[in-house]
Amino acid sequence: MNQQYPSALLERAVNEFAKLPGIGAKTAMRLVLHLLRQDKETVENFGHSLITLKNEVKYCSECHNISDTEICGICADARRDHTIVCVVENIQDVMAIENTHQYKGVYHVLGGVISPMDGVGPSDLEIQSLVDRVNKGGVNEVVLALSPTMEGDTTNFYIYRKIEQSGVNITMIARGVAQNDELQYTDEITLGRSIINRVTFTGKI
Amino acid sequence: MNQQYPSALLERAVNEFAKLPGIGAKTAMRLVLHLLRQDKETVENFGHSLITLKNEVKYCSECHNISDTEICGICADARRDHTIVCVVENIQDVMAIENTHQYKGVYHVLGGVISPMDGVGPSDLEIQSLVDRVNKGGVNEVVLALSPTMEGDTTNFYIYRKIEQSGVNITMIARGVAQNDELQYTDEITLGRSIINRVTFTGKI
Repeated sequence: MNQQYPSALLERAVNEFAKLPGIGAKTAMRLVLHLLRQDKETVENFGHSLITLKNEVKYCSECHNISDTEICGICADARRDHTIVCVVENIQDVMAIENTHQYKGVYHVLGGVISPMDGVGPSDLEIQSLVDRVNKGGVNEVVLALSPTMEGDTTNFYIYRKIEQSGVNITMIARGVAQNDELQYTDEITLGRSIINRVTFTGKI
Repeated sequence: MNQQYPSALLERAVNEFAKLPGIGAKTAMRLVLHLLRQDKETVENFGHSLITLKNEVKYCSECHNISDTEICGICADARRDHTIVCVVENIQDVMAIENTHQYKGVYHVLGGVISPMDGVGPSDLEIQSLVDRVNKGGVNEVVLALSPTMEGDTTNFYIYRKIEQSGVNITMIARGVAQNDELQYTDEITLGRSIINRVTFTGKI
């Protein structure tokens, strides 16, 4: 909508919303007008929740996950296995893995993957701190859980080269056909790899 | 994502975003993490723009459009024809009509349409203020420009009954086939009406 707004305040709020990824001018307008219809307290809660988050949020000094405290809840949990470190790209991936309830180790959040196209190199990520963490001892296994993309694979390989001398076990999450996928529509790389990496069928899924 | 957030501050911000229409938990998370990557000033501008808008915005006392002043820019403009009042549902519709550069009268923003299903009755809308405005005199024509839906038509008819006695001209924006529509895919109500309301072809579109 290339047009004049009836109010400079409205225009400013719409423009701020429209800066967000995937939010165009029309959606921004709809969201702002929705907020305008809410009561004053709701809008203030919304605005302040973002400002407070930005000003007060911390990143765990161990794993670099978002945290309200110096050490995050997972790293501070004595019941977790601190000898296994799962390397993930971002916070959402920690939440996704936690959601499976299948992992009891700790994490290391890289903050991205190596992507020369986007100008992201190893020094922009928490890779050196991972190497330091492994070299400090106490870690038996590093589980690489990056996305199965070219950037993820590049980052996996870079990390592997950085820590292979340390003697730690380096594993990678299994790649293969996803639950409920139809074989005929699965790409050949995935299907081929699922055959190469076949596992003994034990009668349980 | 039915899961535990690593930070209560993060969770609060995501929940606030997820209250917005059309924004689910995953999108909210993506937007909040995007804001977290911006600098402090950007996030504060975002939050404050919404709070300021809510606290300081005014509604024009004439037409009820959003405004930074007591009387909006359109109503305050002496070059506009104040004898023609275009009745619209909301602010976006004012902006859409202004964008055509085809209308030089003023507006009356209802703030919605009559919709019993959504619990919106005539008293929830700026209908009485429209009737008062017409009865006060000085208005020659009321242009009904509501959406061609059942709710829009109901509202059109309600307004018509309220102001027909005043002797003002009551018009409605033309309904017919839209530019670049294909006739074979146009619904029969629209196509039938476009035949009934055909106009003299003057050689100009």
